[in-house]
Amino acid sequence: MGKPNKSRGQLKLRSIAIDTYRENVAYLNRECGIYRAEGFQALSKIEISANGNTILAMLNVVDDDNIVAPGELGLSEQAFEQIQLDEGTLVCVSHAEPPASMESVRGKIAGQRLDERQFRDIGRDVATHRLSKMELAAFLVASGQTGLDRDEVLYLTRAMTETGTRLNWHEPLVVDKHCIGGIPGNRTSMLVVPIIAAHGMLIPKTSSRAITSPAGTADTMEVLAEVELAPDKLHHIIRHQRGCISWGGTANLAPVDDVLISVERPLSIDSQGQMVASILSKKLAAGSTHLLLDIPVGPTAKVRHMREALALRKLFEFVGDAINIHIEVVITDGRQPIGHGIGPVLEARDVMQVLNNHPEAPDDLLQKSLRLAGRVLEFDPDVRGGQGYNIARDILESGRALAKMNDIIDSQGRQTRQLELGQLVFEVCANTNGTVIDINNYQMAKIARFAGAPMDKGAGVDLLKKLGDDVKKGDVLYRVHAEVKSDFEFAQHLTREHGSGYSIGNADQLPKAYVEF
Amino acid sequence: MGKPNKSRGQLKLRSIAIDTYRENVAYLNRECGIYRAEGFQALSKIEISANGNTILAMLNVVDDDNIVAPGELGLSEQAFEQIQLDEGTLVCVSHAEPPASMESVRGKIAGQRLDERQFRDIGRDVATHRLSKMELAAFLVASGQTGLDRDEVLYLTRAMTETGTRLNWHEPLVVDKHCIGGIPGNRTSMLVVPIIAAHGMLIPKTSSRAITSPAGTADTMEVLAEVELAPDKLHHIIRHQRGCISWGGTANLAPVDDVLISVERPLSIDSQGQMVASILSKKLAAGSTHLLLDIPVGPTAKVRHMREALALRKLFEFVGDAINIHIEVVITDGRQPIGHGIGPVLEARDVMQVLNNHPEAPDDLLQKSLRLAGRVLEFDPDVRGGQGYNIARDILESGRALAKMNDIIDSQGRQTRQLELGQLVFEVCANTNGTVIDINNYQMAKIARFAGAPMDKGAGVDLLKKLGDDVKKGDVLYRVHAEVKSDFEFAQHLTREHGSGYSIGNADQLPKAYVEF
Repeated sequence: MGKPNKSRGQLKLRSIAIDTYRENVAYLNRECGIYRAEGFQALSKIEISANGNTILAMLNVVDDDNIVAPGELGLSEQAFEQIQLDEGTLVCVSHAEPPASMESVRGKIAGQRLDERQFRDIGRDVATHRLSKMELAAFLVASGQTGLDRDEVLYLTRAMTETGTRLNWHEPLVVDKHCIGGIPGNRTSMLVVPIIAAHGMLIPKTSSRAITSPAGTADTMEVLAEVELAPDKLHHIIRHQRGCISWGGTANLAPVDDVLISVERPLSIDSQGQMVASILSKKLAAGSTHLLLDIPVGPTAKVRHMREALALRKLFEFVGDAINIHIEVVITDGRQPIGHGIGPVLEARDVMQVLNNHPEAPDDLLQKSLRLAGRVLEFDPDVRGGQGYNIARDILESGRALAKMNDIIDSQGRQTRQLELGQLVFEVCANTNGTVIDINNYQMAKIARFAGAPMDKGAGVDLLKKLGDDVKKGDVLYRVHAEVKSDFEFAQHLTREHGSGYSIGNADQLPKAYVEF
Repeated sequence: MGKPNKSRGQLKLRSIAIDTYRENVAYLNRECGIYRAEGFQALSKIEISANGNTILAMLNVVDDDNIVAPGELGLSEQAFEQIQLDEGTLVCVSHAEPPASMESVRGKIAGQRLDERQFRDIGRDVATHRLSKMELAAFLVASGQTGLDRDEVLYLTRAMTETGTRLNWHEPLVVDKHCIGGIPGNRTSMLVVPIIAAHGMLIPKTSSRAITSPAGTADTMEVLAEVELAPDKLHHIIRHQRGCISWGGTANLAPVDDVLISVERPLSIDSQGQMVASILSKKLAAGSTHLLLDIPVGPTAKVRHMREALALRKLFEFVGDAINIHIEVVITDGRQPIGHGIGPVLEARDVMQVLNNHPEAPDDLLQKSLRLAGRVLEFDPDVRGGQGYNIARDILESGRALAKMNDIIDSQGRQTRQLELGQLVFEVCANTNGTVIDINNYQMAKIARFAGAPMDKGAGVDLLKKLGDDVKKGDVLYRVHAEVKSDFEFAQHLTREHGSGYSIGNADQLPKAYVEF
């Protein structure tokens, strides 16, 4: 329960040609009577209103009448657009009351369990930019540390889908697959989508770009085709091709999730509850009815133990049931990178080799993609249980998956310029005889990033040996490709000073794979 | 280990007359070649450097050549001052690398214990504004939730005193007293300071303004005298009067603490480790050698149980010993407000009544102040153990404390205008016969705040009944004073809809006071 505002004075609205992105900024001249009377301070939040329109903005104080004169109130581009008033309109300003949901944010910081209404209030204040990044960081860290119970995860998921676009495909079966991430080279979506679409099922897959990894599906697809598509064009492609592989950033799906991610990522906040809510809110907004979830488990994967994977599976299933998405979870082998290549061009090469039934195509990527596609196919009531894998293999081996991929590429817009592998190359070799018993996912991702991926599409790591391979001293374990000299040197320094990422030992030291399909 | 920067291009430096307070802002024209080449985004952090000077700033993108033209780099007032270069200097801009201490912040979010070097890195990045409020909020919430161990509290305390001014009084005994807060009306400092200074001990007391309470010591003292004093004048007063009662905001003591508080307060982050580090870093910076700490305990105090108070005492003692401040902790009765008045004018009245030996002076404020002053006096090696209280009483009853207070008021600058009590008054009465068995500190503070305190100095609550008093139905429990009609109505609504703050019952229901002097 807050105190009501005292709103005073009238100022002439002026648009200031400054782009402040997601933050509203208001500009007030220091000599302005209202500024002095109200005791505003730079960076404090003020409320601006006229004709029933109200926005919040952060205050900047101006000492130059040419930017803003006394008697005027300036608004940055975004804020001016949001208030929807003409320049010269008389507006009132007052101290902004803390947003209503601040009480709930403080409650979470104090370790309280929040109810559905409180999550909805928070979602609404995020969507209208009433909660600052500082306040969101506090909420997210507190949620991560005390943990959200499964009802709270459900409330958060629902709260995130209450704003933004919600797609409706008017079909009974809209499928998707999603991996929780953490495994370099794991580009199964680029194989599952053409297989499923070739079968005729609707799979409108939107993907993310890499933020902390060396490549996201969108980065890798961009080697082959345009991925930033306007919503209308995207709909057209999906209707005609039954699938797409595009970047999800243009669709305004669950924008609250985008705001939360913009806080979580730089802080490396990584809680299971938030991850589940983030993934499922996006799927709900995208209109999915059936979802196959891939949880890789391994010593350097996001999920390291089977018990943790099972708990996560239950959480996905609980929330999925409540929001009416049919979820199947597969727990997969996350002990090492998937495929040979890490980095956009290398990963695109692996994918196209599989689609072309090329003899050098990486077998782990092929097998995993067929198994996942098989499970998705079995969402189709006409597919007999256990037959999905064989159908997927048939679609791939017959060339129908390749043909569908080419159709998707052409409709999204084929890249005219063939992207090349980085020409600066160094090799990392085995320093002893033995068996490869560990390939560290984090270290391999880091080497690829240091080499320039994903910004430099041709940069990355090409793995010549995988887990269980026998090696002799001097055998090449992997090659690193870079486009820029400083990146090349930096990646080289990393492998020399902080380890190759490979461990070589005896075959009996190989970690067991806990795989459950 | 981050990747090195790629720094490009040269831009002409320009000062922009916009005050962005604690945040550095840089302005770049959207048509600027470097902006386009680097792929900067509004609100991203950039690094600006020339001639060995480097600062970080948040980017705003400008679409008006009159503010910033292509080829120019604008800096807000604070940022321009910080970079210490002339307008027109050629500067380089690049993406800012995340500050070095971000790795430690992420570690704390992940629940790790940090070492002294990591706390020092964080302190340095706070002082140079390299950590954003979002990052600080995450760090503080994580610290509060996983808890800092006592070594970490010590490291944080030291890290906060490494930047900013550190006073040295060149005397062996520099005393202070401090209450952890939470009890309305608890204005003992305004009595302890004149008693101690009259005895001749050095007590350079700087106080805070109210942030969430209805009055801080600085707000109450301001009823009588100027409290915003330039550092030089403050020193002069302290040297001549042996004490002062001023606002601490002008002294630049432990500025890192000020930044952390600016994040903690709006989020109501309230962790014991951070409180101890905050209090002791300020005392260390102020040059105190001896400190008396007041921890009130009660059902609506900050500390609710004796065991919690004892744990807090040990923590204060541990850190105090390590930074070489002699600390004595007293645990006091925090079951109800101290004195009669809550709000600046009312509290100043109580204080002056005690100093004047007025028969209506509130006895609890009088007794508590004498006990605290007595304990501070015993820091003096010449005062025999157990004699402090009697000396303090003698100084008060003889009028020497009043004379000293008048000297301090005159040297700080006596208020010319007598501040009056708010003329809008309503009374809250007992609704039954019985004994006052509870007065809720939170509710009484809230009523006073809603009535307008501390901004309206004459607003507040005047308590006519205290714990243990027998009342008859209809007896006045307290009076609420306001200056503004809307505040008056709002306070009235609060007492009607959300309770008077008083509980009346049987004498045997009175909570026990755990008081230990």
